[in-house]
Amino acid sequence: MATVIPPPLGVLISEVGPRDGLQSVAATMATAHKLRWLDALHASGIREVEVGSFVPPKLLPQMADVAEVVRHALALPGWTVMALVPNLRGAEAALAAGVHKLTIPVSASAAHSLANVRKTREEMVAEVARIVALRNATAPAVPIEVGMSTAFGCTLQGAVADAEVLWLASELVRVGVDEVGLSDTTGMANPAQVRRLFLALRAEIGSKAGAAHMHNTRGLGLANCLAAYEAGVRTFDASLGGLGGCPYAPGASGNVVTEDLVFMFEAMGIATGIDLATLFQARAPLLAGLPGEAIYGMTPEAGLPKNFTQGSQNV
Amino acid sequence: MATVIPPPLGVLISEVGPRDGLQSVAATMATAHKLRWLDALHASGIREVEVGSFVPPKLLPQMADVAEVVRHALALPGWTVMALVPNLRGAEAALAAGVHKLTIPVSASAAHSLANVRKTREEMVAEVARIVALRNATAPAVPIEVGMSTAFGCTLQGAVADAEVLWLASELVRVGVDEVGLSDTTGMANPAQVRRLFLALRAEIGSKAGAAHMHNTRGLGLANCLAAYEAGVRTFDASLGGLGGCPYAPGASGNVVTEDLVFMFEAMGIATGIDLATLFQARAPLLAGLPGEAIYGMTPEAGLPKNFTQGSQNV
Repeated sequence: MATVIPPPLGVLISEVGPRDGLQSVAATMATAHKLRWLDALHASGIREVEVGSFVPPKLLPQMADVAEVVRHALALPGWTVMALVPNLRGAEAALAAGVHKLTIPVSASAAHSLANVRKTREEMVAEVARIVALRNATAPAVPIEVGMSTAFGCTLQGAVADAEVLWLASELVRVGVDEVGLSDTTGMANPAQVRRLFLALRAEIGSKAGAAHMHNTRGLGLANCLAAYEAGVRTFDASLGGLGGCPYAPGASGNVVTEDLVFMFEAMGIATGIDLATLFQARAPLLAGLPGEAIYGMTPEAGLPKNFTQGSQNV
Repeated sequence: MATVIPPPLGVLISEVGPRDGLQSVAATMATAHKLRWLDALHASGIREVEVGSFVPPKLLPQMADVAEVVRHALALPGWTVMALVPNLRGAEAALAAGVHKLTIPVSASAAHSLANVRKTREEMVAEVARIVALRNATAPAVPIEVGMSTAFGCTLQGAVADAEVLWLASELVRVGVDEVGLSDTTGMANPAQVRRLFLALRAEIGSKAGAAHMHNTRGLGLANCLAAYEAGVRTFDASLGGLGGCPYAPGASGNVVTEDLVFMFEAMGIATGIDLATLFQARAPLLAGLPGEAIYGMTPEAGLPKNFTQGSQNV
């Protein structure tokens, strides 16, 4: 099940901007710009990238070129090319395009699941099982990850009980998912909750506990990543420039900013494999492809500290 | 030595905006606006406030009215009114004004000390000793805190050795300082360093280890506060709206944003004594007094999460 490159270093930063970021903004980035942006991300040392969603173009025109984007990303060596698929049809297309890894969003919140995909959580587990069967039959080397959205709270129903998150995670593992990560879709998580829930997730599903996908909606993104790290998480989703703003909170960035997250880990002496100066350069093709879009990032704005060198000497 | 109100709750948030924030912006807030802002901060439950600096008005015209501001703050019940004093002359004026507590900045970086106050660190320790002698003779109930600036790195000299921080802290305690806190003046700290240095500080000077004063220059402010909390720190400096931008990094806020810090602790079930909704209302008089100034704060922009109530039920 694991042809994907394992993280040889301290932590694996999974860049989700080309998917999560681009599908959250109103504008559509032209394909040529996407490819240049991917080249720049790859050059920085990013080792896992979520390049797009396999969804009907009429629902998400930003992703209409996903097969071409996947083809380009697959030609770049040494990284894991992942695509989001919301259902079996998307998985068929993604596997046909040759992606290395699939990620499926499943809501922990019953209300969010119905609102977002018009399926109950049980129906989504059944859909995931069908995707697993397809994968087993046609592409057994492709891992399947679930990113469990609204795991820390939901704008529709408010709190989500830990027990529901753990029940859903074990159901997903039961039907054959390789990794279950937890997403703070709504920016409601706090560090105590993050630590508690990831520890409980590991107790429930062991090494199949996956990535932390944190948002910076209320400024706690990096603190929540730190808490997740302390709870044993070693894969972190992030978005260059924090692309993927929270639509209901103007000025509030959505995803954790890749640049700041990489700076935090590297400053702590925890290797990411990513060169910060080169990563900062990947902001230019992003901005070129989305003129006028607000992007975030405190570290690129402030610059690296005097005499900063990546590695343990800063610890 | 301790007439000051001790923190009865989980953590003590020390609001430094009226001093650190106002002296970092070019505009001068009119006295009437300062008083309204202080009223609003007090109403939210803030229990310690740094109201100004006792420095020559020609150096810092923003602080020319500090005695009047102190007088107003002292009339509000139930909080500790603190002023910054850079030298003996400032301390004389602050004690004459009747402040509850003095805070003195002392640089851990030799280069920064010379550049900032034209004194070596040893000369600053001697100046602090003179302030302690004055306090002992004239106002023995007034605690003296040192905020050790550049404790986590310096834009002039780069890294600052832990051993220098600990040496300076023990020197300051030797001459009679009641608390020594550590300041990330330049936004260079990382959580591993914060945890290590505060644990070492406590090992060196015990219960005289004081506040964490973190900046958000590179986005790590809250993560660093979390790390400090885990190392036993229970007093945190912060600035409403993150006022006190970093002059060399446009767009990068300086001090940790009080609103986001209070949200983080309250969401974790760690009481601050501060009511978030009332705290958000204190942004209006701040903005009224500094029209056009950029202020920060993700939580006030996003709003509190659905069904959020302050206290342990969110943990």
